[in-house]
Amino acid sequence: MQDALVVFTPSGKRGRFPLGTPLLQAARQLGVDIDSVCGGRAICGRCQVTIGEGSFAKHGITSTAAHVSAFSATEERYRGKKGLASGRRLSCQATVQGDVVVDVPPESQVHRQVVRKRAEVRAIELDTLTRLHYIEVEEPDMHRQRGDFERVQEALERQWGLKGLTIDLEPLQMLQKHLRAGGWRLTVAVHKESRIVATWPGFHDRLYGIAIDIGSTTIAAHLCDMGTGEVLASSGMMNPQIRFGEDLMSRVSYSMMNPGGDAEMTAAVRGALDALAAELCAEAKIDPHDVLELVLVGNPIMHHLLLGIDPVELGGAPFALATDSAIEILARELDLAAVNPGARVYVLPCIAGHVGADCAGVVLSETPYLNDEITLVVDVGTNAEIVLGNKDRLLACSSPTGPAFEGAQIGHGQRAAPGAIERVRIDRETLEPRFKVIGCDLWSDEPGFAAATRKTGVTGICGSGIIEVIAEMYLAGILTQDGVIDGNLVARTPRIRAEGRTFSYLLHAGEPEIVIGQNDIRAIQLAKAALYAGARLLMDKLGIDKVDRVTLAGAFGSHIDPVHAMVLGMIPDCPLEKVSSAGNAAGTGARIALLNRKARAEIEDVVERIEKIETAIEPRFQEHFVAAMAIPHKTAPYPNLAAVVPLPAPKEVTGGAAGEGRRRRRAGG
Amino acid sequence: MQDALVVFTPSGKRGRFPLGTPLLQAARQLGVDIDSVCGGRAICGRCQVTIGEGSFAKHGITSTAAHVSAFSATEERYRGKKGLASGRRLSCQATVQGDVVVDVPPESQVHRQVVRKRAEVRAIELDTLTRLHYIEVEEPDMHRQRGDFERVQEALERQWGLKGLTIDLEPLQMLQKHLRAGGWRLTVAVHKESRIVATWPGFHDRLYGIAIDIGSTTIAAHLCDMGTGEVLASSGMMNPQIRFGEDLMSRVSYSMMNPGGDAEMTAAVRGALDALAAELCAEAKIDPHDVLELVLVGNPIMHHLLLGIDPVELGGAPFALATDSAIEILARELDLAAVNPGARVYVLPCIAGHVGADCAGVVLSETPYLNDEITLVVDVGTNAEIVLGNKDRLLACSSPTGPAFEGAQIGHGQRAAPGAIERVRIDRETLEPRFKVIGCDLWSDEPGFAAATRKTGVTGICGSGIIEVIAEMYLAGILTQDGVIDGNLVARTPRIRAEGRTFSYLLHAGEPEIVIGQNDIRAIQLAKAALYAGARLLMDKLGIDKVDRVTLAGAFGSHIDPVHAMVLGMIPDCPLEKVSSAGNAAGTGARIALLNRKARAEIEDVVERIEKIETAIEPRFQEHFVAAMAIPHKTAPYPNLAAVVPLPAPKEVTGGAAGEGRRRRRAGG
Repeated sequence: MQDALVVFTPSGKRGRFPLGTPLLQAARQLGVDIDSVCGGRAICGRCQVTIGEGSFAKHGITSTAAHVSAFSATEERYRGKKGLASGRRLSCQATVQGDVVVDVPPESQVHRQVVRKRAEVRAIELDTLTRLHYIEVEEPDMHRQRGDFERVQEALERQWGLKGLTIDLEPLQMLQKHLRAGGWRLTVAVHKESRIVATWPGFHDRLYGIAIDIGSTTIAAHLCDMGTGEVLASSGMMNPQIRFGEDLMSRVSYSMMNPGGDAEMTAAVRGALDALAAELCAEAKIDPHDVLELVLVGNPIMHHLLLGIDPVELGGAPFALATDSAIEILARELDLAAVNPGARVYVLPCIAGHVGADCAGVVLSETPYLNDEITLVVDVGTNAEIVLGNKDRLLACSSPTGPAFEGAQIGHGQRAAPGAIERVRIDRETLEPRFKVIGCDLWSDEPGFAAATRKTGVTGICGSGIIEVIAEMYLAGILTQDGVIDGNLVARTPRIRAEGRTFSYLLHAGEPEIVIGQNDIRAIQLAKAALYAGARLLMDKLGIDKVDRVTLAGAFGSHIDPVHAMVLGMIPDCPLEKVSSAGNAAGTGARIALLNRKARAEIEDVVERIEKIETAIEPRFQEHFVAAMAIPHKTAPYPNLAAVVPLPAPKEVTGGAAGEGRRRRRAGG
Repeated sequence: MQDALVVFTPSGKRGRFPLGTPLLQAARQLGVDIDSVCGGRAICGRCQVTIGEGSFAKHGITSTAAHVSAFSATEERYRGKKGLASGRRLSCQATVQGDVVVDVPPESQVHRQVVRKRAEVRAIELDTLTRLHYIEVEEPDMHRQRGDFERVQEALERQWGLKGLTIDLEPLQMLQKHLRAGGWRLTVAVHKESRIVATWPGFHDRLYGIAIDIGSTTIAAHLCDMGTGEVLASSGMMNPQIRFGEDLMSRVSYSMMNPGGDAEMTAAVRGALDALAAELCAEAKIDPHDVLELVLVGNPIMHHLLLGIDPVELGGAPFALATDSAIEILARELDLAAVNPGARVYVLPCIAGHVGADCAGVVLSETPYLNDEITLVVDVGTNAEIVLGNKDRLLACSSPTGPAFEGAQIGHGQRAAPGAIERVRIDRETLEPRFKVIGCDLWSDEPGFAAATRKTGVTGICGSGIIEVIAEMYLAGILTQDGVIDGNLVARTPRIRAEGRTFSYLLHAGEPEIVIGQNDIRAIQLAKAALYAGARLLMDKLGIDKVDRVTLAGAFGSHIDPVHAMVLGMIPDCPLEKVSSAGNAAGTGARIALLNRKARAEIEDVVERIEKIETAIEPRFQEHFVAAMAIPHKTAPYPNLAAVVPLPAPKEVTGGAAGEGRRRRRAGG
């Protein structure tokens, strides 16, 4: 028999094959990555390729469509039913007839890449743990008695090379009906090449997964097509545990004070996940039974409550986690009924008592462990989780920022919601402010602002607004480096007002009046000092004075303006173009772990290697904290920031008091 | 440092060890089998040994109690608390001080043998899948953050050499509480050296398992101590599925006729298992949470219904099982709540569509696959399961005996219950019968019988009684070889009565009158012919004319008198001392699989190798069936039987007709 040269692109893999060899078979023998669910039966259409036309000098081949077989009746039937773009062939049907260059387009590759929007992060390679396999099963035969399942095993071994598979009870219960309904044709979902987790009669090519980030306030979920990696629907909802306590510690207290309180909170969050999953399936119009994988992330307390572990140990030193390993369980073990109860659930590992699986998700999304650059990753919340390092070494800690960044403890603070001030600029001369509120694209000094905000009003100031107004007050000379509002400015503008022994700044004169008082500034100073001190502690441990890159993660992080954050001294100095926002990186990490099995091993390994630092027992933390009360910092230089933003000259005033630094100095004087 | 020679008996393993080496450590280094749950902390007392006294010429040692260390305070504490028999030492405490012979008594061996009552079967070696390990766990430390579970993993690796264990969700949920309640001392139950399935605070040494045989009529269960293999409690109950149909096929029909009928029957049998498990735990006064293993056997339809698989496919050809492999699931998957929901359930493999996991249990109990002798194992029920072979080759089939052996289709037949006739003898001269009924030890012709049976009465005749009366009728010359009641005997005794064209035999003249009619004999002939034909078919396949041993399994089998069964021709001829009754061998097989992990692999392998014969498609089956209608058989010789029992000379009568054989001959004549 004659043979011919076949070259696959883009891999460049090549080999000689006898004429008549199906292209898919040639690809498999060479280890070329081509997808298939139906196993070469012209049903799924996943194995499409394009035949090169012309002379390929690089490969030394003249390739033409005539060098593969003509359309068979089977391939024509597929084309008639499902369509086949011009130039495309089913590689399971087209056979080698001469030298040929075969291009495998990205969508025909099993391990195709799912593109992410941000340039600095890697693409997600599709490599799911659960995969679909279509098989044709022998009918039962009284002369050779074998169970139906055992003949399914035989078919999987013969048709897919999958040996010794086992099966969950539920698909076993349905197996005989599915085999007969499909006329001895069956699609099986196989988890980790070892266990059958679902079956469908005949051919089936839909498989879904859900990635969920369980925040203390919000639960966000993404439904993904496991065949393409595409997000089909996203949704979020309030965490219903809020009724047991606004913040994490109040939920731990609820559990301590109320016997069975942890079980109530567990039921609440599981119920929410179930509702969210149902909503996503309805929105995407998919069968919930086809959802076979879930990946979950959350902070340690959310993690424990989700799993039904009383979080009481996380409420006090030594903050012992029940486990810091990744968890693999079944949807039914979490009482999830809105998806396939046999769906595999993967929970990312926790890093430490205060640094949860959500932070592991951030690390997996941002991959500081792959870079030469030293990256500081900060996820700001009631606790800030801080990760610092590069491919050689990675450290993590959490720092108790408190809820000031979320608008709590701030006189006119509020959650980010329509009507909340989120951007602020203060004129360096007039000290007049302008601002933007959520829900309106206009600045407050632009025409039409009043009309555009009539509906929402201007109701308060949210976290990013607080950061900007304080940074702007400092840049405009209203605040000293120590965070004291300069009472001497009362003469210059009526916006500075005396409030007893301290002063305030009138940001908005409407109803309500929005005023930034000395206490607000002090609250933010405490929060930002904690954040900075945590980062600084890790820098000490790593023996560095500056970082190469700063990534702000979390919903809040993505709304912070990097310049203002740096002016305030929340983060250390760094080239401003290297400060970026990662959005919901925890959720992205969950999605990566959903779509890529190697990513799971990778993050488990990375988390194991992360050096966990407990700020509470580090003597230097307090020292760093005190120095970080100043704006931007008592001692640390900010050369990159100064090159971009004119920082005011140091200024000392006598009125008012702001924070530890100030008080200490007074105590010392 | 000096060393000394240590010889362990009965293993004979020996080695030199430095003075001061604990005996347990020396044993482990030599691979001597000594049990321990506490890991050498003088808590469990499982590692007891006896120190040899005197000169052991065989070992070349003079051994004395003085050659090991004196009682330490720890060992004294154990002795004070739990007692220590004279001469016994804890091998974890006593150290080598000179040459010594150390005897390890059976109860200190992990793999000790559980003795069975019957001489011809092997003992069960204790080798459970789930084992207890006591550990001492490091307390959490903020300087070295690791989860509680991860420190448990470390302790298991360091203290027991168990690496990379995972944990079920339920024990993970309880882990932190148990660690703290036990002061960082914990006992864990580890399944297959790989997964933690339960934990207890502090030291715990109780672990139980239940072996269950699910019959269509009766469910029998044994609660075993997994540490000793001892049966602590046994109980049985009616299978509540009886309300859906008396026999197997009527239950399959129920499922076919009633949508959801299979689910009703599944719920019924699971509920019964749960009730039975609860009853056993209560009876043995043990904590149900300590029951961590179950092994189940049953015929294919019981097997499927238990697992929640609709048995409809088993109701007709080709009788396809959903699976014929062994099944490993969790108690909670079977809705069992009376034991630990995380208990591991093992269901033995089914052999074929009519030959179930109960038969696999029989095979495991009787081990025909280990013998040179050709053994015929027969489990008699509505279907007879028949296994034939030896260590070289094993075959199995089932044969449709129908319910006659269970007393159905018999005029005065009844289930085995007080008042039922179970033994019969007929005087060869007078043709007068005497009999025994269940619940009374006297024969009916002995003084006091009437008084002793007044309460129960004589209500009918059960399976073993039917077999005996027909065999005796044949031996007394009342029946011809073709099974016809000889009407000529009417003249000799009023017990023979004309009933239209046929005759009957009056067994008991009371109220009710118990009469054996020609139809009763015909029904038994059909049943015994089916049984014999199945066995004969397997003998053909194996190419043999006689078997070396016959084992009768099942509750019914254990009540049959071998001689009468052979006279009737239920089983082929065989030396009578080689015919034995195995009792509930299916349940024994389940108990073996519960206590010995290698037994599971063994039976899975054996079942895989058994040649499954489907009688329905074997042309010779019908032929054998016809020839087997005669008593004992039309053609097969019974030399072993004839040597023990005087068989009547062949006799031909004209009146009456009994069965196929007779009719065929008539048709031919």
